[in-house]
Amino acid sequence: MLLSINYGVYDMMIVGGSGSRHLAVKLSRLMRIDLLDVEVRKFPDGEIYVNFLGDIEGEEVILVQSIAKQPNDLLIEFIFEAKTLRDLGAERVIGVIPYIPYARQDTRFKPGEALSIRIVAEMIEWSGINELYTIDTHLHRLKGLEELFSINVHNLTCMRELARYVIKNFKLNEPIAIAPDEEAKQWVRVFSEEINCPYAVLEKRRISDEEVELSIKDIEVVDRDVIIVDDIISTGGTMAEAVRSMKKLNARKVYAVCAHPILVGDALYRILKAGAEAVIGTDTIESPISYVSVAPLIASAILKRERG
Amino acid sequence: MLLSINYGVYDMMIVGGSGSRHLAVKLSRLMRIDLLDVEVRKFPDGEIYVNFLGDIEGEEVILVQSIAKQPNDLLIEFIFEAKTLRDLGAERVIGVIPYIPYARQDTRFKPGEALSIRIVAEMIEWSGINELYTIDTHLHRLKGLEELFSINVHNLTCMRELARYVIKNFKLNEPIAIAPDEEAKQWVRVFSEEINCPYAVLEKRRISDEEVELSIKDIEVVDRDVIIVDDIISTGGTMAEAVRSMKKLNARKVYAVCAHPILVGDALYRILKAGAEAVIGTDTIESPISYVSVAPLIASAILKRERG
Amino acid sequence: MLLSINYGVYDMMIVGGSGSRHLAVKLSRLMRIDLLDVEVRKFPDGEIYVNFLGDIEGEEVILVQSIAKQPNDLLIEFIFEAKTLRDLGAERVIGVIPYIPYARQDTRFKPGEALSIRIVAEMIEWSGINELYTIDTHLHRLKGLEELFSINVHNLTCMRELARYVIKNFKLNEPIAIAPDEEAKQWVRVFSEEINCPYAVLEKRRISDEEVELSIKDIEVVDRDVIIVDDIISTGGTMAEAVRSMKKLNARKVYAVCAHPILVGDALYRILKAGAEAVIGTDTIESPISYVSVAPLIASAILKRERG
Amino acid sequence: MLLSINYGVYDMMIVGGSGSRHLAVKLSRLMRIDLLDVEVRKFPDGEIYVNFLGDIEGEEVILVQSIAKQPNDLLIEFIFEAKTLRDLGAERVIGVIPYIPYARQDTRFKPGEALSIRIVAEMIEWSGINELYTIDTHLHRLKGLEELFSINVHNLTCMRELARYVIKNFKLNEPIAIAPDEEAKQWVRVFSEEINCPYAVLEKRRISDEEVELSIKDIEVVDRDVIIVDDIISTGGTMAEAVRSMKKLNARKVYAVCAHPILVGDALYRILKAGAEAVIGTDTIESPISYVSVAPLIASAILKRERG
Repeated sequence: MLLSINYGVYDMMIVGGSGSRHLAVKLSRLMRIDLLDVEVRKFPDGEIYVNFLGDIEGEEVILVQSIAKQPNDLLIEFIFEAKTLRDLGAERVIGVIPYIPYARQDTRFKPGEALSIRIVAEMIEWSGINELYTIDTHLHRLKGLEELFSINVHNLTCMRELARYVIKNFKLNEPIAIAPDEEAKQWVRVFSEEINCPYAVLEKRRISDEEVELSIKDIEVVDRDVIIVDDIISTGGTMAEAVRSMKKLNARKVYAVCAHPILVGDALYRILKAGAEAVIGTDTIESPISYVSVAPLIASAILKRERG
Repeated sequence: MLLSINYGVYDMMIVGGSGSRHLAVKLSRLMRIDLLDVEVRKFPDGEIYVNFLGDIEGEEVILVQSIAKQPNDLLIEFIFEAKTLRDLGAERVIGVIPYIPYARQDTRFKPGEALSIRIVAEMIEWSGINELYTIDTHLHRLKGLEELFSINVHNLTCMRELARYVIKNFKLNEPIAIAPDEEAKQWVRVFSEEINCPYAVLEKRRISDEEVELSIKDIEVVDRDVIIVDDIISTGGTMAEAVRSMKKLNARKVYAVCAHPILVGDALYRILKAGAEAVIGTDTIESPISYVSVAPLIASAILKRERG
Repeated sequence: MLLSINYGVYDMMIVGGSGSRHLAVKLSRLMRIDLLDVEVRKFPDGEIYVNFLGDIEGEEVILVQSIAKQPNDLLIEFIFEAKTLRDLGAERVIGVIPYIPYARQDTRFKPGEALSIRIVAEMIEWSGINELYTIDTHLHRLKGLEELFSINVHNLTCMRELARYVIKNFKLNEPIAIAPDEEAKQWVRVFSEEINCPYAVLEKRRISDEEVELSIKDIEVVDRDVIIVDDIISTGGTMAEAVRSMKKLNARKVYAVCAHPILVGDALYRILKAGAEAVIGTDTIESPISYVSVAPLIASAILKRERG
Repeated sequence: MLLSINYGVYDMMIVGGSGSRHLAVKLSRLMRIDLLDVEVRKFPDGEIYVNFLGDIEGEEVILVQSIAKQPNDLLIEFIFEAKTLRDLGAERVIGVIPYIPYARQDTRFKPGEALSIRIVAEMIEWSGINELYTIDTHLHRLKGLEELFSINVHNLTCMRELARYVIKNFKLNEPIAIAPDEEAKQWVRVFSEEINCPYAVLEKRRISDEEVELSIKDIEVVDRDVIIVDDIISTGGTMAEAVRSMKKLNARKVYAVCAHPILVGDALYRILKAGAEAVIGTDTIESPISYVSVAPLIASAILKRERG
């Protein structure tokens, strides 16, 4: 299917920064476009070195770089790469940042705080990219990425891909999808649509100073398979707590699903120990649970637009 | 002397980012201006958090942040801090970056390389600071920092401070100052002026494929005390080689002096093992050899300008 | 099948150190034995803290800890854990170290070198474990792990598991298995047996000072699917070179397979860029290519012995 | 004075591990004994490599290695070095570990905790060193290092050296030395003896659930110079709190003094911000406040014993 595409008037190349090396190879194979190589090294003094190995003049270049885990190193690398591509004569640079960091710092909880996501978004735009693709960027108080960017930005969702993976690999019994908190409703809705099952949002009720109870209204989980869906698993605390509460309510099997598996420290262990049957994520961030690739999603979004 | 200064129409505050905490305290005490506190933390996922603890509205703020060792973390932190200070209503932000990183990547050695220092300079300027003070920034192919910045930038030299420290602490015998290479001539010239001694530049002569000889023309070092002067000691390779060559030429005592002691890994050990009597640097980067403080230099440059 | 086992006279528990958290959960579920929890934290000064959460007195405990990536941190943690288990009254401690580090430093290439693997083996034994299970430990100059340990040590191979995964997931065309060097022959032999295909060893031929040619004798790879098999993928250099040479010889598809996916830096990218169709490893080290679990292998080896 | 020493029947060499490179050079110059070089590298997979460059057969070797900051890396390195020195035929190995880590984990606060210091001490002894020198090892519940080691161990104190530095460099007004807590009494007593001033121990009094008050009994600090003395400054919390309480009680100038400047994160800044005039430490751990060297102390202790 992808083979019959007419790529238009100029050539396309794809290059993966050190945050998305693997994904760039998948995209280049899927889209049948050339892989541009970039050498990235770190000097002993901590400075990074960026060197493109190929002729970029007049080309349209897709720059793929997830910005997670060492977000500052990878953000600076992205800036160096985007600026240098333009400097070397690239006609257009399409930024693909599967995971945009700092999205949770979207308001001032205290009066002196940095509004980090605003600054990071400005910085990404300032790098000179012409367009941006990203996956399920955490939007809480913001309505859309348009509030942060003036260039064209495409916030794709991988929730349908995750749902299809779950359907294909697990035999579900009267499944129900659960959002661990109000913010996660946006993702669980899409996910449950694809699975064709109901969804609910966990509610926190404070029992005492120390204790919190998670519950769901109007829905019974006894003997049903539950899939808890969130955008990010970072330390795994929220997810582990949600899994535990579902097991308490006598759910049958509990699956934990996320778009972005950051998985800090013991995250995976905490969720499994809480009773999860399996934990599933995508390759927006390379991890031991990156069972689902976002490459087809990104490829078709870019190709659709190129042809449009 | 510093006490009699009239600070002008608006108040000044000083804040140190995590790259120059110590130096900010010294400056606040020396300049007798308030120390503004900023909370900087790193979350488990690698994102940093910046929070100013004080009222900034209408103030002129000096933001001190050396950007060495984890330069990308500290650069992003600086951007967050400068942008947030403006956002919170600071009237003016004076940036003090004692060590500017990436200065050695000032040309394209290979056609696809990032011109890192140009991008970093643009980024610093884009952060919104009104003026910049820095110390002995490595300038090789560039003539001045004016080629990189359009805001006012003051490239101060700490070479006289270093020279005075050496005179005061060591009994020198017919001293001679040495630049380990052509680039270091700019610093050794100022240094030797203050010491009031001659200077020379080491020359490399290739003896065979494997061997290089360092020598100096027209000058005898036998039984003289030699001070080798450079801007940066990073891995210590250049400095150790220079020290060794001077010992071979039968210099009496050899001292190694630099502005910026990055001191990666075994740097100090390598130089001492090569035969150096002592290794001396400043506090542009906090290190075990930061015997000389650049605080008075920066304080008087800023105060002079404020009054001017 | 695993369910009908009689566990014998004393109870068994399993605990995973921070190098093998995930694997310990899999083993506990597979073997139906209790998961013992251990809290492991790092203090700001770099010291680690180990705290077992459960009663160990009189128990037989399986301690699972792969020692890769930050091998020194994980080795010290293992020592703390094994010693503390004994100290708390564990009847027996079975060590499971899926990846033993330092195995490549098994001889003195220079007269002053540490024989690291001997010291590490002594240290593991000194920790007080009663028995050791490990997976495909790199043995080059040593004939068996018996030369390193006096306790019972079981060096299991996961090569049959890897082979079965490859057969199940890829449609192979006249497959041939390849060892990238002489040391890897021991693994490729077992692997090819399970696949039921021939195998060969790559030979290095020096063409000039700069160039090396990899070739195989007496065997044709044109249009055949090639599976390159090694124990470890670290920087990926050896594997990428082997893949490239097979593509040059016009192999059809080339697969890269290993037991231990350490995957330093760009390793995966280098191998894919060289032309590999897929890269497959196990979960001895958690990684994005840990498609095959060694849990069943370890479980059945331990249970067989317990019953024996 | 040190020059007239007769070194006895066998030669001595000194070697510094990567935790004490600088200190080993100082000791070799002071003791006029040969510096043995050891190459220590870290491979990309995190394993370390140790290689001695020199003939060790029949020699007595002093191995200097402070074990702070990345204690596990440096502990493993120490073990590799000590074992290898014996393996290469060293007649005797004298271990000098200026800072021994894990000393604060000397009891079980919870029933499942590792008694880390006991295990670390056993490991150090197991490395095969014949004798151990260390500086002000934190002893709280233990009475002496003899409870941990069966080899000869010398726990030297650097408190007199620190006191002499303070006397020489600061003009003190009716000085008083303060221990921030009961544990620190052992150090402040020696320190105050050398300064010839009184000392006191801070007492904690809980005012409310949130508030703690630090106070001293029977002693007035108004307008007196106060020197707070502790063994370790790690995060700086204890020291900063003590400084603040002394400033509140209207002490004139407050100095913070310690043996081991670990200085995690913002430690120095916190103490200065609390109002300290200066912060002083030794070079048991190389830091920006290592104003006092323990080299003469160690040299004379070893030489005294050699002659004894």
